[in-house]
Amino acid sequence: MRPRIHVITLGVDDLERSLSFYRRLGLRSAGVVASEFEGDDEMAAGAIALFELERGLILSVFPRNELAKDAKVPVPSPGTCQFSIGHAVHSREEVDSLLDAAERAGATITVRAYDRPFGVYSGYFQDPDGHLWEILYNAAFEDV
Amino acid sequence: MRPRIHVITLGVDDLERSLSFYRRLGLRSAGVVASEFEGDDEMAAGAIALFELERGLILSVFPRNELAKDAKVPVPSPGTCQFSIGHAVHSREEVDSLLDAAERAGATITVRAYDRPFGVYSGYFQDPDGHLWEILYNAAFEDV
Repeated sequence: MRPRIHVITLGVDDLERSLSFYRRLGLRSAGVVASEFEGDDEMAAGAIALFELERGLILSVFPRNELAKDAKVPVPSPGTCQFSIGHAVHSREEVDSLLDAAERAGATITVRAYDRPFGVYSGYFQDPDGHLWEILYNAAFEDV
Repeated sequence: MRPRIHVITLGVDDLERSLSFYRRLGLRSAGVVASEFEGDDEMAAGAIALFELERGLILSVFPRNELAKDAKVPVPSPGTCQFSIGHAVHSREEVDSLLDAAERAGATITVRAYDRPFGVYSGYFQDPDGHLWEILYNAAFEDV
């Protein structure tokens, strides 16, 4: 497998709620698309919202039950901590202010930022579906 | 927030198992690092394995319970379908052969690839912790 990821799809309960949340955080999207594909018992419906990130990566939000149908796995209950998404900034102050901005946008802060012994200053928020974002500053992380 | 993701961290049960799995899939890693940070009841241990992907993205595998400690959230049970990672290839044949390769590497195929009405040919596998990868071909997805 080529060492490349093209899309990160978050399973969500409410497409419009997630679209609003990530727009408030500053991400840009054309809105919900592919609603014309209605799906059925076997086939997932198409409706999805895409956010084009830097470097060709796409973040998408897609209904949790449709993702389960698409992947042929049981529908899970909402949860967290199966994974986290890391977003790096240039200073400790930027970590703090971005966590504040996320909270104002409707996120839940699970832990304010603090210094880890391995040189990372970071804190976490959860989006409306519990997905974890770590906002981090690491002096060694030059390419941000 | 700048539209950029720097790291995707998968919560796993067994670092060495995950390291072996992703290496068998062809990803490269320096192995488990930061083991010298042992952590305690409050502070997560440091041990982690990193895979450097294209375009500056890092995929990391980190013990599920340490991720929970780091983010100050309850330790979840293993699960899936909270999200998926999308990996695009250049043909239907490549989708099929990569799913086969993943199965040989120890993945579970949840659904063999098929054509969706919106023009995506894809199938899914789960890694040893249940994390979903969608291997996809989409003629409209030019930049892969």
